[in-house]
Amino acid sequence: MLCVNVNPLFKGFTFLDLSLLFSYKLLNFLCIERQKKKIIFLEKQTKQQLMAGADQEAVRNKQVTLKHYVSGFPKESDMSVVTSSISLKIPQGSKDTVLLKNIYLSCDPYMRGRMSKSDIPSFVAPFQPGSPLNGYGVAKVVNSTHPNYEKGDLVWGFTGWEEYSLVTSPELLIKIQHTDVPLSYYTGILGMPGMTAYAGFYEVCSPKKGEHVYVSAASGAVGQLVGQFAKLVGCYVVGSAGSKEKVDLLTSKFGFDGAFNYKEEPDLDAALKRYFPEGIDIYYENVGGKMLDAVLLNMRLRGRIAVCGMISQYNLEKPEGVHNLMQVVGKRIRMEGFLAGDYYHLYSKYLDMILPFIKEGKMKYLEDVAEGIESAPAALVGLFSGKNVGKQLVVVDGK
Amino acid sequence: MLCVNVNPLFKGFTFLDLSLLFSYKLLNFLCIERQKKKIIFLEKQTKQQLMAGADQEAVRNKQVTLKHYVSGFPKESDMSVVTSSISLKIPQGSKDTVLLKNIYLSCDPYMRGRMSKSDIPSFVAPFQPGSPLNGYGVAKVVNSTHPNYEKGDLVWGFTGWEEYSLVTSPELLIKIQHTDVPLSYYTGILGMPGMTAYAGFYEVCSPKKGEHVYVSAASGAVGQLVGQFAKLVGCYVVGSAGSKEKVDLLTSKFGFDGAFNYKEEPDLDAALKRYFPEGIDIYYENVGGKMLDAVLLNMRLRGRIAVCGMISQYNLEKPEGVHNLMQVVGKRIRMEGFLAGDYYHLYSKYLDMILPFIKEGKMKYLEDVAEGIESAPAALVGLFSGKNVGKQLVVVDGK
Repeated sequence: MLCVNVNPLFKGFTFLDLSLLFSYKLLNFLCIERQKKKIIFLEKQTKQQLMAGADQEAVRNKQVTLKHYVSGFPKESDMSVVTSSISLKIPQGSKDTVLLKNIYLSCDPYMRGRMSKSDIPSFVAPFQPGSPLNGYGVAKVVNSTHPNYEKGDLVWGFTGWEEYSLVTSPELLIKIQHTDVPLSYYTGILGMPGMTAYAGFYEVCSPKKGEHVYVSAASGAVGQLVGQFAKLVGCYVVGSAGSKEKVDLLTSKFGFDGAFNYKEEPDLDAALKRYFPEGIDIYYENVGGKMLDAVLLNMRLRGRIAVCGMISQYNLEKPEGVHNLMQVVGKRIRMEGFLAGDYYHLYSKYLDMILPFIKEGKMKYLEDVAEGIESAPAALVGLFSGKNVGKQLVVVDGK
Repeated sequence: MLCVNVNPLFKGFTFLDLSLLFSYKLLNFLCIERQKKKIIFLEKQTKQQLMAGADQEAVRNKQVTLKHYVSGFPKESDMSVVTSSISLKIPQGSKDTVLLKNIYLSCDPYMRGRMSKSDIPSFVAPFQPGSPLNGYGVAKVVNSTHPNYEKGDLVWGFTGWEEYSLVTSPELLIKIQHTDVPLSYYTGILGMPGMTAYAGFYEVCSPKKGEHVYVSAASGAVGQLVGQFAKLVGCYVVGSAGSKEKVDLLTSKFGFDGAFNYKEEPDLDAALKRYFPEGIDIYYENVGGKMLDAVLLNMRLRGRIAVCGMISQYNLEKPEGVHNLMQVVGKRIRMEGFLAGDYYHLYSKYLDMILPFIKEGKMKYLEDVAEGIESAPAALVGLFSGKNVGKQLVVVDGK
């Protein structure tokens, strides 16, 4: 049977503003609104294809689908790798559509939230069981009816967890202009995690030379960049991670002033006091829970906490309680959540800064690369036990 | 025996900046630094007085002292009302000192923290068992060696919980210029609570017309003002309080658009959804704990939480855990602690705004007045069971 795989997320929208486009809020809206139309659309397309007879340009399309909603730690077996097929032709009458061959898929912690259906409102809609996952990736345009894209263009942005994706909202993609750096970097330092580090540190925290910066999950895609940004500003920066290897990397490769293994610290408050006897001005929050509680005790007057994520909490039935919030009053702490999507208007400014640093070797960047789309479930699941060392991504074609 | 009562908090400092002076951080420093000198100073003064013979101008000085550090809910019996005496003369050689006759004492929730000695750093030093409490009040200058103050001047600011206080750091006092409003208002709407409401709402939250504002502990000294400020800006405002009487006051007297009794709401999330079906833009946080958790679920995109205090937590051995902090990420919530002391440079601007409103009856203000210094312990303790209706203060001379 011939099956046309269209990710309903990408079906024909007109958008006004690229910064808005990447807002998860919008994505959330899109997911919910378009989901309703998914079945009708798929049925119509499949019927058209069947009526046209077997498509000579159909190719195999391996996909990673979610089997069912997940509670607790996700397992590889919560996902399936299925083989479907897809036409390399863009369905007749589909305007402003591109067909992508996916090259790299990005494994990002926020995806955990999308594997569950929660009663608590989230900034992004859950995945649909039985459908391919989607997320950030790097891809090549195979076919296009959109005036801005042509065959051979390289893009990064939202795509499906599959070999090929038919994208009907290519405004959710950014064309790659600079190819003299590794393409995979557009899943990380040159993509969403890069903008997350940049916006959270520079825009949310307004760092000043000499300030004391603490980064949790510091060897991850975002943390390793924040630490290096802090050094560029002239801050004192300490990071924490969950293994000796990672902790060593923080000081030896990324230039952190200090680092510790949080798993070997029975008293996080004491550990922070050891590294920050004068307190913390800026906390780049990636983990939440007990760590946040300990950090609050060690914040300095007028400290800033950029809340990027809380990975330690994502697999808990109920998030841990944070007890020391009263600290924000006396110390006048500002705690602020943010999403990279709100800052994409700064992307070209960011590229102007970061590309020379990469080319001159002044910014280090570490990737953890899984080979082949079949390895994607394990790579994604590995994020939540800290298996990855550096930015976790998947090369779709592992051959 | 003649005893000179000198609050060590007020002994001769030179300060640069009035806004800094009122910073609790500074007060904390002062308390700690000066405590060390207290015994030496008192011993010296007492010796001088004894050598000079009986002071003809000594008067009775009733004082409220802390008996011992408190855990859990404070009780009246944790304080004592003792009768001492004080000379109305300023000790020889004491420059820049004023002797105050206290008129009104202010009962404020933050004082609970000062009744305990905690391992967790606080923004203000604890009271000293055996010594008089201190806090905000309104007083008349009885005697002065400070060039800026003379007998008969009225002041508000930090003073002792006693009939007379010898203040050696009058920079911690503000001279009262407007006496055509009730003097007691300088413990509330025209004093620290007024500046707390003003700074927290206008400066921290940057409210816009049409926004949805929620105020907890809304009939208290600060909450009643925040609600009225919100209406001045053109916001929709709902408050919560702990009795039918208070809830009625919110809508009938203070002009809130809605109000509810949190004690009668088994599901705070559901209550908030009832009053804010479209969510909350601004939360003026006075209570913490479960209420904050419920509010987080109901905040809107780019909501602001001004963290003024968390009175529901002050008497707990360990503060409750707040579980829904992950909401700050997707909704880009800014949560910010503040102290009125950082905004005292805006005091005259605030007076320019608020005095006409008071005189024209456009701002309502409700006080709960306890008569006589003997009633001060009960009045202070009453704050923590919500006994007070409106701003709790004490008239020192209850006759």
